[in-house]
Amino acid sequence: DVSIVAAADKFPEPREAFARDFEGEVYEDASDLCKSPNIDFVYIATPHQFHKEHVIMAAEQGKHIIVEKPMALTLGDCDAMIDAVDRTGVKLIIGHTHSYDPAIRTMRDVIASGELGNLGMINTWNYTNFLYRPRRPEELDTSLGGGILFNQVPHQVDSVRLLGGGKVKSVRSATGIWDASRPTEGSHITFLEFEDGAAASLVYSGYDHFDSDELNGWVGEGGQARPPGQHGRNRRSLQEVKSQEEETALRTSAYAYKGLGNQGNNTADQHQPRFGVMVVSCEGGDMRPTADG
Amino acid sequence: DVSIVAAADKFPEPREAFARDFEGEVYEDASDLCKSPNIDFVYIATPHQFHKEHVIMAAEQGKHIIVEKPMALTLGDCDAMIDAVDRTGVKLIIGHTHSYDPAIRTMRDVIASGELGNLGMINTWNYTNFLYRPRRPEELDTSLGGGILFNQVPHQVDSVRLLGGGKVKSVRSATGIWDASRPTEGSHITFLEFEDGAAASLVYSGYDHFDSDELNGWVGEGGQARPPGQHGRNRRSLQEVKSQEEETALRTSAYAYKGLGNQGNNTADQHQPRFGVMVVSCEGGDMRPTADG
Repeated sequence: DVSIVAAADKFPEPREAFARDFEGEVYEDASDLCKSPNIDFVYIATPHQFHKEHVIMAAEQGKHIIVEKPMALTLGDCDAMIDAVDRTGVKLIIGHTHSYDPAIRTMRDVIASGELGNLGMINTWNYTNFLYRPRRPEELDTSLGGGILFNQVPHQVDSVRLLGGGKVKSVRSATGIWDASRPTEGSHITFLEFEDGAAASLVYSGYDHFDSDELNGWVGEGGQARPPGQHGRNRRSLQEVKSQEEETALRTSAYAYKGLGNQGNNTADQHQPRFGVMVVSCEGGDMRPTADG
Repeated sequence: DVSIVAAADKFPEPREAFARDFEGEVYEDASDLCKSPNIDFVYIATPHQFHKEHVIMAAEQGKHIIVEKPMALTLGDCDAMIDAVDRTGVKLIIGHTHSYDPAIRTMRDVIASGELGNLGMINTWNYTNFLYRPRRPEELDTSLGGGILFNQVPHQVDSVRLLGGGKVKSVRSATGIWDASRPTEGSHITFLEFEDGAAASLVYSGYDHFDSDELNGWVGEGGQARPPGQHGRNRRSLQEVKSQEEETALRTSAYAYKGLGNQGNNTADQHQPRFGVMVVSCEGGDMRPTADG
């Protein structure tokens, strides 16, 4: 049984909304939250550059941890986080949420069962508006964890590796930075070969010129219906934005926690979550997540 | 002005159908056709292993040539063919027909115009029933030119190279042979990098478990409408076939020239030809061939 009992945010509005919805503890500083004796695990969704510090802080207080992807910005930071959880004996999970999508778990089960024979190849495309959602400055700076490689490709890599079920033997990749005004990686093609001979291609473009939800019955990442006419809306909104400060404010107003009553009416037309278009080919059949499973 | 004046086929029925439709010369042997003084160019659509011999034969009679893809089965044969046309001064074109699709030519023109900025990446998927169309034995033997690498991938490579507009700097590829009863390559993933930095992924599966025409409004390679319910029909037909001789006879009856009056009613519901699903991404926009252009 899980209860949500505490939250930390440096902004007052989300804190107040949380206190109202959950009647829980609220903290301005994450380190105070980690010290609360009422907490068994923490979910860390702070900006990427704080993941290492916050994971180690929580581990040292004996809390189990879910940390948002990307795990960290460098392999050194990842090693330090792994050391901390090994030392303190807590559990650490990285929030590659799409590997938990029902379609991904089902496909993994089918592959593992052998009923379709050996896995041959996995191909996945995602074309989104990622680069044109409102962003904080560091989200557009690769060295600070910006761009699709840190924010979106982990979903693809984790899902494909889970489905591949084995170790990756070789990787070749090309990345693209195509908009000088938002100078971080917005696209990639990656080719993977698994040790057992299966192969995969992973493609992402966040430049919002084409939306692969079009190939999926206009159902979005979270399973929500997406009326086709909205395509390009975020990019057009950003053209009205005059400064980085305005953009950061827009992002905060769009994404900060505003309370349970303000989450929209997604439940009315809810489909399966998925991440672009994917075809998983075994010797005896192909599988593809669709809007409804 | 082009007139079709002669044809050669070792089977009598297609010869008779041709003579009836075109009132033209008919030959049992291609070498006799090449000697006809009434011919300026020949279209060579013989089985792959004869391409070298027939191209050289036509070149030595001074005929210009279109030869079906693949050009030949070895680089050595290709070199011999190139030597023959250089020596005799005739023109040689390889029949990579999909590079002439209106959508491909239009996308190439847009890329060359620079209006969408530099080319970034090209991604193309084709999932078809290639391996389960009725085949002659050599079409299922890679060493004799069987499988998708010789028969289908040339369309992808030629289209992508035309769009890429430059030389390919590196290639990495994985191929799959997933049906022991038809032991030739039925799938591949290939990753290309162009010298100017653009990249491409090419995917093909001919195992008929999923049909990417589904992502294209059920319009097939030639632009014909394909009712969804027909999926898997060829594979099921082959299950009724008892021997390789029966399969070869089925192929001949399905594909041999039967005359102009017997080509079906494709014209009634004709769309653009295309080859799977393709997205071409430039810095300033994405392009995708669809059923109607």
